[in-house]
Amino acid sequence: MPASYAYLGPEGTFTEVALRTLPEAATRELIPYVSVQSALDAVRNGEAEAAFVPIENSVEGGITTTLDELVAGRPLMIYREVLLSITFALLVRPGTKLSDVKTVTAHPAAQPQVRNWLKTHLPDAVWESAASNADGARLVQEGRYDAAFAGEFAAARYGLEALETEIHDAENAQTRFVLVGRPARPAAPTGADKTSVVLWQRDDHPGALRDLLGEFASRGINLMLLQSRPTGAGIGNYCFCIDAEGHISDRRVAEALMGLKRICLQVRFLGSYPRAGVEPADVLPPRQGTSDEAFTEASDWVARCQDGRF
Amino acid sequence: MPASYAYLGPEGTFTEVALRTLPEAATRELIPYVSVQSALDAVRNGEAEAAFVPIENSVEGGITTTLDELVAGRPLMIYREVLLSITFALLVRPGTKLSDVKTVTAHPAAQPQVRNWLKTHLPDAVWESAASNADGARLVQEGRYDAAFAGEFAAARYGLEALETEIHDAENAQTRFVLVGRPARPAAPTGADKTSVVLWQRDDHPGALRDLLGEFASRGINLMLLQSRPTGAGIGNYCFCIDAEGHISDRRVAEALMGLKRICLQVRFLGSYPRAGVEPADVLPPRQGTSDEAFTEASDWVARCQDGRF
Amino acid sequence: MPASYAYLGPEGTFTEVALRTLPEAATRELIPYVSVQSALDAVRNGEAEAAFVPIENSVEGGITTTLDELVAGRPLMIYREVLLSITFALLVRPGTKLSDVKTVTAHPAAQPQVRNWLKTHLPDAVWESAASNADGARLVQEGRYDAAFAGEFAAARYGLEALETEIHDAENAQTRFVLVGRPARPAAPTGADKTSVVLWQRDDHPGALRDLLGEFASRGINLMLLQSRPTGAGIGNYCFCIDAEGHISDRRVAEALMGLKRICLQVRFLGSYPRAGVEPADVLPPRQGTSDEAFTEASDWVARCQDGRF
Amino acid sequence: MPASYAYLGPEGTFTEVALRTLPEAATRELIPYVSVQSALDAVRNGEAEAAFVPIENSVEGGITTTLDELVAGRPLMIYREVLLSITFALLVRPGTKLSDVKTVTAHPAAQPQVRNWLKTHLPDAVWESAASNADGARLVQEGRYDAAFAGEFAAARYGLEALETEIHDAENAQTRFVLVGRPARPAAPTGADKTSVVLWQRDDHPGALRDLLGEFASRGINLMLLQSRPTGAGIGNYCFCIDAEGHISDRRVAEALMGLKRICLQVRFLGSYPRAGVEPADVLPPRQGTSDEAFTEASDWVARCQDGRF
Repeated sequence: MPASYAYLGPEGTFTEVALRTLPEAATRELIPYVSVQSALDAVRNGEAEAAFVPIENSVEGGITTTLDELVAGRPLMIYREVLLSITFALLVRPGTKLSDVKTVTAHPAAQPQVRNWLKTHLPDAVWESAASNADGARLVQEGRYDAAFAGEFAAARYGLEALETEIHDAENAQTRFVLVGRPARPAAPTGADKTSVVLWQRDDHPGALRDLLGEFASRGINLMLLQSRPTGAGIGNYCFCIDAEGHISDRRVAEALMGLKRICLQVRFLGSYPRAGVEPADVLPPRQGTSDEAFTEASDWVARCQDGRF
Repeated sequence: MPASYAYLGPEGTFTEVALRTLPEAATRELIPYVSVQSALDAVRNGEAEAAFVPIENSVEGGITTTLDELVAGRPLMIYREVLLSITFALLVRPGTKLSDVKTVTAHPAAQPQVRNWLKTHLPDAVWESAASNADGARLVQEGRYDAAFAGEFAAARYGLEALETEIHDAENAQTRFVLVGRPARPAAPTGADKTSVVLWQRDDHPGALRDLLGEFASRGINLMLLQSRPTGAGIGNYCFCIDAEGHISDRRVAEALMGLKRICLQVRFLGSYPRAGVEPADVLPPRQGTSDEAFTEASDWVARCQDGRF
Repeated sequence: MPASYAYLGPEGTFTEVALRTLPEAATRELIPYVSVQSALDAVRNGEAEAAFVPIENSVEGGITTTLDELVAGRPLMIYREVLLSITFALLVRPGTKLSDVKTVTAHPAAQPQVRNWLKTHLPDAVWESAASNADGARLVQEGRYDAAFAGEFAAARYGLEALETEIHDAENAQTRFVLVGRPARPAAPTGADKTSVVLWQRDDHPGALRDLLGEFASRGINLMLLQSRPTGAGIGNYCFCIDAEGHISDRRVAEALMGLKRICLQVRFLGSYPRAGVEPADVLPPRQGTSDEAFTEASDWVARCQDGRF
Repeated sequence: MPASYAYLGPEGTFTEVALRTLPEAATRELIPYVSVQSALDAVRNGEAEAAFVPIENSVEGGITTTLDELVAGRPLMIYREVLLSITFALLVRPGTKLSDVKTVTAHPAAQPQVRNWLKTHLPDAVWESAASNADGARLVQEGRYDAAFAGEFAAARYGLEALETEIHDAENAQTRFVLVGRPARPAAPTGADKTSVVLWQRDDHPGALRDLLGEFASRGINLMLLQSRPTGAGIGNYCFCIDAEGHISDRRVAEALMGLKRICLQVRFLGSYPRAGVEPADVLPPRQGTSDEAFTEASDWVARCQDGRF
């Protein structure tokens, strides 16, 4: 039995396309699940080696169902991320012309991306929502609708053709996906890495959150995501999902996490993993005094002082 | 024609119940709208005097559709907030017994709140989603389902009776609603107030967000909500919706907003309004050096120094 | 009776030379006093319009007798500063050759500046201290010593000649002098100004001093001097004499002083005055968001928000 | 040959009295030196095992000659401190009555401490300065003056008697002395310790000094002394002598020093040693999250995260 990856299904969605960009996906069985929760549970209970789910996109920000699953329950870790540009194709049954399209369908999340295109090119078309973009394509295949917005890659699977491609209202529409597994040693640093944590404040006073962020700032660490999520202790009680530049094996990141661990009620480590879409050569060098060498020199110096050798 | 308040419909939901707790609602026509966006647009285009919509709850945190509408488009302002404890009743047609219930319905947002109750009391019941809790009650009335989870107040409207009340998984399940209008002078301070703003960073460097929060922290101002929302400029670009203690007519708040205005790319003021569920007597006095008197003394002193009179 | 300036005497010292670089000194009677204290008291009791005293030098740092006089007693204000490079001449009676010099004298403060020169050129000369460099020159005139280290300008007054000039061990040996008067409106800003204050902390806890400095830092204001002085309340109790870039009529400086006034036990304003040796063209523009325009825009914006006009 | 301690002489001064309060002084030869510099040089060149010199007093603050010697030259370390309350006796030849006293003498540093007493009890007495308080007593013994202000302990040595004791203008007049040796392992922590360092900033920008102090503040470490001293690179260039609570073997102190080492141009460690006049029982426990246990837990946790074991 090959090791398997669970992913948020159904087949034929952007999630599957993103997953297949990972080389390791080629050697695993890829199994669609009906929800983020069920995919992650499959990892937790050992059914799957890892799960592949969306975690952030340029329209919604952090995807709360995924974050909430990572924040609570048995600990999981992120090992990889994939960034996928989201552009839609208008899929129709072969032979359909644009002027024939009276009804269109797609997952509701697609709507903000295609609204302007629709207004210009199909102002009179009636929109109905589908359970997923892939499901929308299937419904076009079955003749229930005239056209579906979906990834161009879905055309072949459902015997459709793309009347138009590269449809997207917002420039830079992207979704970020992560490969999540049970806790293990993080992948080695690549020079362009990211570290994800969840922080729970010990108490809430003026400056409490500023001081947490200070643990990153004072070590020159940039943040890429700060998403608050309810703790379940009542309205107004939040924990913070944070993505920071760097790898837990970087001294500055390790020290920042130590600082957070001391001052937070709780910290959950969600992994250190290579950044998608960024080459090590594109990463700015650490700010002066925050390189591994600077940390090593400083701790050597303190050790010498403790010994009286200087 | 009476002035009207738009609200997120349909009728018979928690939103309407919350709205009716506002004394001023008694003298307005209350008009349900199908979406937060349409309710707020009714305010923007002058159809309605104000709109009443949910903005935060203890399960989801900040409600992103509402926040996104407030962040973008023509400016609006929050004038009031209402906190409502969310507990469900199991509504059935008169005469139905618990053992008769094979199918249940409700809006998907209700599911996390009733899951444990269902597992214990109706482990075999089949769940199907409704467009709203009120709609679920209507479908029970029509005989499509055996029972609906909804607010107890919905029973009378749909000729149903409550088999069980006070159903809620999480203690302290609450939703916060806001009354939103066109910009005008904020309500006078009550001594227990809250100020909402949206911040866009000028650039993203280590410490940038910490420095923004420092404008509140250095003036002893506590934060109640920090919710990041995508700016639309691509994945990883966020603005921050912040609720802070105090009123824009408090000197410490006004000065913090001035500081933010200077260092942010953009700041949107969303209003200062009385805090729901908090009496002025329960609010801690401002930290030493941050009262209005302290600010007045300090600026008088600087004026005297500028004049050489001391 | 012409207005008079008191200065730290005696005549013929660097202090007098520095004072005479001020154009306004030409129209005043210049009166030497035996101590900084007596010169400042002359201002306090109305005997003199202003006093001219050293306040900082490159060897001693802040000159504590001057600072202590400004910190306590009736308030005074600094109106001007003068920077003077300190180089010595070796003054002898006419006809004396270097090889004739067996004894040398000067004020003890001169010693660190001439030590190396002495070691090289007069290794066998005997040093004795004088009450001032001018007094040393007088003693040479009287034949008590063979040579005196003093400012070259002292030669004429005492009928001596300079065997050697430009003697100084440390490069950049400079003394800063200030013209101190009774409180009045500060001089208008020139674009290259400095503001002096004394701060007393309200209490001493971890971070207290950091937070004081934060009032400058968060407004992009550079510090030029931070000198702690005992408060008189026992060992370990200090106030802080601070020189900061900018003028109290600059919004960023005024706001920083307001912030300090609120959080400090006490703040004493010591004046805003033109920086010596710095042209307005050499001063970096204020950091983004800290110009007067940025402050004005920000307070206008807050006023509009308070009014609901935006 | 017994090990010797150098101290700032002459014999019979407060410095010697303070030194003799150290138990270890009983087993050393105590050798007076004419200056702080010569006493410290005796340590540097191996003539003396340690030197005992004043470093701070309640009138002058940090004693700059001592600090400047510790800041520059071959590194030295502080091993002990002694706090001595400074009160004067009026010493006269036996038989002299107060009404006989026409002339008084003492070291100039004594003057601020006895000024008020003199004004009240001997308004007409003439003051002349002595090279040290002990020397003043000697001059009274020789009949040159009628009375000397000195420590009461000096009476016996010079055959004088104390007409009056406990003379001091300022309450809490104290001097702090330190025992300085060549670098070696610091004394073990006692629970009431102090750590001294010198910091040189890497560059001077708004916030630079605040950030240095932040390394202490963010770890809950209180400061007891912050004394700026010129670096020798010209007027306005300062390094900072800092005394902080705690011992370099405390994790919070070691980490703060590491942070400083990374961001400073240079850090000089001057030692960790027991605080004088403070019992361990009087020291507040470390702020939550800054105890050694908190640091150990945090670094264990990071190590487990780096390993994927959690």
